[in-house]
Amino acid sequence: MTLLESAKNGIVTESMRIVAQDENIDHESVCRSIAEGHLIIPQNIHHNFHPVGIGKGLTTKINANIGTSMDHLDINEEMDKLEAAIQAGAHSVMDLSTGGDLRSIRKKILAASTVMTGSVPIYGVASILASEERNITEMTADMLFDEIELQCSEGIDYITVHCGVTMKAVSLAGSDNRICGIVSRGGSLLAAWMHHHNRENPLLEYYDRLLEIVKRYDVTLSLGDGMRPGALADATDRAQVEELVTLGGLAERARIAGVQVMIEGPGHVPLNQIATNVQMEKEICNGAPFYVLGPLTTDCAPGYDHITGAIGGALSAYHGADFLCYVTPAEHLCLPVVEDVRMGVISSLIASHSADVAKGIPGAVERNVEMSRCRKDLNWTGMFDLAIDPLVPRMRKKISDNSEDDVCTMCGKLCAIHTHNDICDEKK
Amino acid sequence: MTLLESAKNGIVTESMRIVAQDENIDHESVCRSIAEGHLIIPQNIHHNFHPVGIGKGLTTKINANIGTSMDHLDINEEMDKLEAAIQAGAHSVMDLSTGGDLRSIRKKILAASTVMTGSVPIYGVASILASEERNITEMTADMLFDEIELQCSEGIDYITVHCGVTMKAVSLAGSDNRICGIVSRGGSLLAAWMHHHNRENPLLEYYDRLLEIVKRYDVTLSLGDGMRPGALADATDRAQVEELVTLGGLAERARIAGVQVMIEGPGHVPLNQIATNVQMEKEICNGAPFYVLGPLTTDCAPGYDHITGAIGGALSAYHGADFLCYVTPAEHLCLPVVEDVRMGVISSLIASHSADVAKGIPGAVERNVEMSRCRKDLNWTGMFDLAIDPLVPRMRKKISDNSEDDVCTMCGKLCAIHTHNDICDEKK
Repeated sequence: MTLLESAKNGIVTESMRIVAQDENIDHESVCRSIAEGHLIIPQNIHHNFHPVGIGKGLTTKINANIGTSMDHLDINEEMDKLEAAIQAGAHSVMDLSTGGDLRSIRKKILAASTVMTGSVPIYGVASILASEERNITEMTADMLFDEIELQCSEGIDYITVHCGVTMKAVSLAGSDNRICGIVSRGGSLLAAWMHHHNRENPLLEYYDRLLEIVKRYDVTLSLGDGMRPGALADATDRAQVEELVTLGGLAERARIAGVQVMIEGPGHVPLNQIATNVQMEKEICNGAPFYVLGPLTTDCAPGYDHITGAIGGALSAYHGADFLCYVTPAEHLCLPVVEDVRMGVISSLIASHSADVAKGIPGAVERNVEMSRCRKDLNWTGMFDLAIDPLVPRMRKKISDNSEDDVCTMCGKLCAIHTHNDICDEKK
Repeated sequence: MTLLESAKNGIVTESMRIVAQDENIDHESVCRSIAEGHLIIPQNIHHNFHPVGIGKGLTTKINANIGTSMDHLDINEEMDKLEAAIQAGAHSVMDLSTGGDLRSIRKKILAASTVMTGSVPIYGVASILASEERNITEMTADMLFDEIELQCSEGIDYITVHCGVTMKAVSLAGSDNRICGIVSRGGSLLAAWMHHHNRENPLLEYYDRLLEIVKRYDVTLSLGDGMRPGALADATDRAQVEELVTLGGLAERARIAGVQVMIEGPGHVPLNQIATNVQMEKEICNGAPFYVLGPLTTDCAPGYDHITGAIGGALSAYHGADFLCYVTPAEHLCLPVVEDVRMGVISSLIASHSADVAKGIPGAVERNVEMSRCRKDLNWTGMFDLAIDPLVPRMRKKISDNSEDDVCTMCGKLCAIHTHNDICDEKK
């Protein structure tokens, strides 16, 4: 039985209990939300790690993308990124490797990863073809499904499959109304294949075959957004919404088949369209967990897209997005380095935590209250311990000119907290 | 005649024309908005620089705080921060120096600053007293007003005055309901003075005297928020709103006197209270420009408060805040260094630009469209030129493994833009 089938039968599993305990909610409601498709716990039957839930009523989760590229290939560096991501607080990593011996890289990452681990199987096929100087158009449906089966058998917890990249959606994305066309790597590969063969997307055509494979390993589907906007101007356009409508139907079919599913979302979205995008997904996909990439609220900040992504991520999560894919400072420029990974995770955690506080998720407000009490008491150790990243603030205080004082170099003797505490003490 | 008096008389001045031209709006509406108190152009009659407007219908503006402290005192470093702030795109700086020869520091900053320059005069009084080991309680009303007059005569463009720190507000801030008490430096100093003397705030008691002084130099009042929340838990509480109500009345009196005025705002505010905070200010203060510090959407990210501030700043500006005071990575930890200043300004610009696009401010959408066209064309020079900070992205691309290629090391041969452009080319 898959986790979803257990939930449908009202059977509370060990992983449901763990998630309920970690999130301070009761396990019956976790079980019910899974059965309804509003909550998922991605975990391959062959991957052993502490399970984490994504969805309704839970804290917002964070994913960090790692992996080699053809132009930058160093497996040790990727293992360092994996460690940095997990240490900084990522709840998930995706191995998006496209360079080198992908199978051995994935094996190493899966063995070392103590968090849920996802992938985009079409990258495997495309990378092998590209390394042989062959075009994606030479891919066959069997090659793609074999790769999916392989990765599922290896223990991957969730896979991104761009099943909604239909002939109609691709045609809409190619219209003059869209500035940036298709910016999803997987989406563009499928579109090229479909264009060449003049055939519908094999992931859509053989969707039942896909469901059969993933079900055997209890792998979660992450229905990819191949049509996600790559420009603010392209946000919420016909191509994007056409795909979302398709994904809504496919999510339904996955749930009926007993397969957990989440929906991937944009991308580049202006602030004033973020609430709409989340609401659309929740309505069209019957409350399936929403996994957003960013979104970025301006196109104009390359080098700082972790900040742009934190703005969009915070607002998305506040409006109901459940899972944030981090964006690093390297986005739009190059493959991230280890420090980019750390910055990306921390930025996403700031966004998710800001949303969780505003939504009143259990524990989130309390942590801020505790931090504020430490501020009032000028209890620096307490502040560092409660910080999203304790490392940098501890170091900055330590190297400052008055590191031994209970005040900081910003205000020194004129510390407002001190001044006000003195008044309060006098009143007592 | 002050600028506000000119506007009330329907006289379009040179600075109104400049602002109208820079913002792509007509000068009559600039003049009208100034007369209504919805738009300000802070500029001391003794300070010569290219004027910039703040308020209704304009792009969101950014301020960078610089200045020495008693624990860290290096005037050359502050001059470097001034240069870094302006170069990164700050529209304003505030000299918040509290250490060293404040008058000579201010003189140097005012001479070198090519943007509007503000200050908090009570810091001057408090610093001099502190340097003589005397307490703020030894301040007299005359000392404070003399300092204000001095700074106005030197050419400061706007001053923060915490006139709304009333006995009632201070008492509310000291209640057990508030965790962090008073976190405003100026506010806490006044509260200490008031507590000691059991007297009302001199800035409130002699508000007409204040108006007379600033009017002579056409200095803009920035009505400070001494009661701003220093903890999410304290946001939108009675102390804060009590002060805002007072400030609304004082703003009215300033406008009647022909003095331009803006209102300072929080602080630490959860995401779900930001829209309310902006709307409250706009209603209570009759549309006076709103100058927010952050706001920070979580208390738990010391070391990264520029990111937290970008989240809160973007949402505030989207809902109508007009002026963002930057927050640097050093916030809550130490006096910022030059790189903190640069990061703070860039983060605030990302926030303000994200809001301007969403609000449809003239020019904002267009810049993003242009950037997106460059992305589609893989025109890297164009992308760098349009970036909020061109330096970092240019450098990152340059040092990457495939710096000469038109793609980046993230996707290389599998570049989605390339793949999709090929399909589009074939279709032609």
